[in-house]
Amino acid sequence: MRIHNFNAGPAVLPEEVLKEVQQNIVDYKGNGLSVMEMSHRSVEYGEIIEGARAAMKRIMGLGDDYAALFLQGGASTQFLMVPLNFCPNDKVANYIDTGAWATKAWKEAKKIGKKYHIAASSEDKDFTYIPKTWELSDDPAYLHITTNNTIRGSEWKIDPDVPAGVTLIADMSSNFLSRPLNFKKYDLIYGGAQKNIGPAGATFVLIKKNMLDRINPGLPTMMDYKTHADKDSMFNTPPAFSIYVIGEVLKWIEKKGGLEALAVNNKEKADYLYNIFDNSDFYRGTVVPEDRSYMNVPFRLPTEELEKKFIAEAKTKDMIGLKGHRSVGGCRASIYNSLPMKAVQCLAQFMLDFERKNK
Amino acid sequence: MRIHNFNAGPAVLPEEVLKEVQQNIVDYKGNGLSVMEMSHRSVEYGEIIEGARAAMKRIMGLGDDYAALFLQGGASTQFLMVPLNFCPNDKVANYIDTGAWATKAWKEAKKIGKKYHIAASSEDKDFTYIPKTWELSDDPAYLHITTNNTIRGSEWKIDPDVPAGVTLIADMSSNFLSRPLNFKKYDLIYGGAQKNIGPAGATFVLIKKNMLDRINPGLPTMMDYKTHADKDSMFNTPPAFSIYVIGEVLKWIEKKGGLEALAVNNKEKADYLYNIFDNSDFYRGTVVPEDRSYMNVPFRLPTEELEKKFIAEAKTKDMIGLKGHRSVGGCRASIYNSLPMKAVQCLAQFMLDFERKNK
Repeated sequence: MRIHNFNAGPAVLPEEVLKEVQQNIVDYKGNGLSVMEMSHRSVEYGEIIEGARAAMKRIMGLGDDYAALFLQGGASTQFLMVPLNFCPNDKVANYIDTGAWATKAWKEAKKIGKKYHIAASSEDKDFTYIPKTWELSDDPAYLHITTNNTIRGSEWKIDPDVPAGVTLIADMSSNFLSRPLNFKKYDLIYGGAQKNIGPAGATFVLIKKNMLDRINPGLPTMMDYKTHADKDSMFNTPPAFSIYVIGEVLKWIEKKGGLEALAVNNKEKADYLYNIFDNSDFYRGTVVPEDRSYMNVPFRLPTEELEKKFIAEAKTKDMIGLKGHRSVGGCRASIYNSLPMKAVQCLAQFMLDFERKNK
Repeated sequence: MRIHNFNAGPAVLPEEVLKEVQQNIVDYKGNGLSVMEMSHRSVEYGEIIEGARAAMKRIMGLGDDYAALFLQGGASTQFLMVPLNFCPNDKVANYIDTGAWATKAWKEAKKIGKKYHIAASSEDKDFTYIPKTWELSDDPAYLHITTNNTIRGSEWKIDPDVPAGVTLIADMSSNFLSRPLNFKKYDLIYGGAQKNIGPAGATFVLIKKNMLDRINPGLPTMMDYKTHADKDSMFNTPPAFSIYVIGEVLKWIEKKGGLEALAVNNKEKADYLYNIFDNSDFYRGTVVPEDRSYMNVPFRLPTEELEKKFIAEAKTKDMIGLKGHRSVGGCRASIYNSLPMKAVQCLAQFMLDFERKNK
């Protein structure tokens, strides 16, 4: 029996992928060793990592002008690498602040002594919306956005326009490959794999190759994107197993029909829940309707007591991961690509029943 | 059929562990989800990571004065973090250089502008031995050693003495937990997991807690050991699956009788091969006998042609990973903890047969 897994990350993976991985965990395709035991320099592993790299770019519609890397350290390490590599001391790192992770991104630029500028922020209304306008500083090194806010449940519905010559960088950790975006607008895209495309332990980075010529000189080896791009993320041992599972998830995405098909499915799942908010004075969404995320659906009940009861009762019905992030409380359903429709239907039904019984 | 896997890393894992992992890869102990899908903040995952942490310290005989962390980025990232955290600008980072990875460690200190000093080096004889004496600089921030040299196949047989008050730091990537060491002599121990204790993607760090008070101020968040120690390596999402497998390998080590038992086994395995070198003018070890590694056994044949033939023929007999590192050529058998005795016996027999046929 598979539980209904609403975890925010690490999160649900496709059952087909788990079964495929299970088959290869002791003996990879009859080679007599586990995929975990393969040298990252072997021909067999080369096919795995190159396959994952190619599938990712194919799904995104990106060409040879982008490099696809698999690094370590999560988005938190990218918060450091981005300003370190791409904010020269005479320029200004620009950020749009849409909640906890977006805040951490600009705070890291500040911490390492870079000039920074908050081009827009939704903090004035407790991060319940995505800013629709922003003002860049003079001499912007780049504009950084967070395309989906895992904790607050807001999501950019457009790919922002920036003036010609301004670099656009996005943390896409929690909505990566959930629907088609105009990926080519972005010069650098990164995120932790553990939400939409794989297990924890790998960080995906898509970088426009012409960015590599603009990296600040003299960086520590492992903090320099060029180190990793020059060696196809094999400068040192990559997180080999996580990359293998990512490759299997990417195959699954292509089999499902790619981003267009996932988008339809993800919207349908999200609408099940948002429709309940819109027709209830018991459940309350926490984000303005036009900026609601298709991936993370936070909501409140009339009292914290009822929220506790809701989460506990859901668990008895095999639904887990419904507790909101500890920094904001409440409830949250994360409904990533791999979460089956029936899990959301089951949750929606439970929400209606719970409302009837507890109103 | 299990192949005989002499890979230098990622490397062989215990078959029992692989089978246990296989059972839990779709449904972890009946919880209805994969271990890869579990929230790192869940009670179940908490038991996994705390279990691994406790087992590691128990096996090493370390107490509450050490913190055990699981980070990302491999030893290469530690080459950066060590001087960043522990070399103040008015002190000197001391290194003993015993080959490629040891060289990379001091080069990173140099790259980030720290004062450094090579306290001893075996480069004069092409890294074929471990220096027996060394000379520290004035005002040493620490002495850094590499306890086993994966590429060259040399290993420290003692835990070096340092004057009172001098910090001792070791990269133990390739001989970690292979035999008892006086671990308490070291203030900081680190390494990539993918040789002796698990799959790629996790970096183990054992750090004496009083070191945390001496960290250079103002470091980037993810580069600061205190960030990770304060949150028990849960500041951000850890490489959760790799840590789970490490935990299973640590259970296996304890079941096998701990480091004393492994040491006996590892020495017996190594002796099979070194005895051949000592009784042959066909195979030639590349390290002085007293410094030979119990983990990585590099050797040469009379010609490069014969080496190629040796590696190719071995592969037809289900022995892989015998090619030396590309920087030094020749052959190398990595014979980590998990490599069964019978794999080494099989290799030894093949070596004798090959010598007879090709001499």
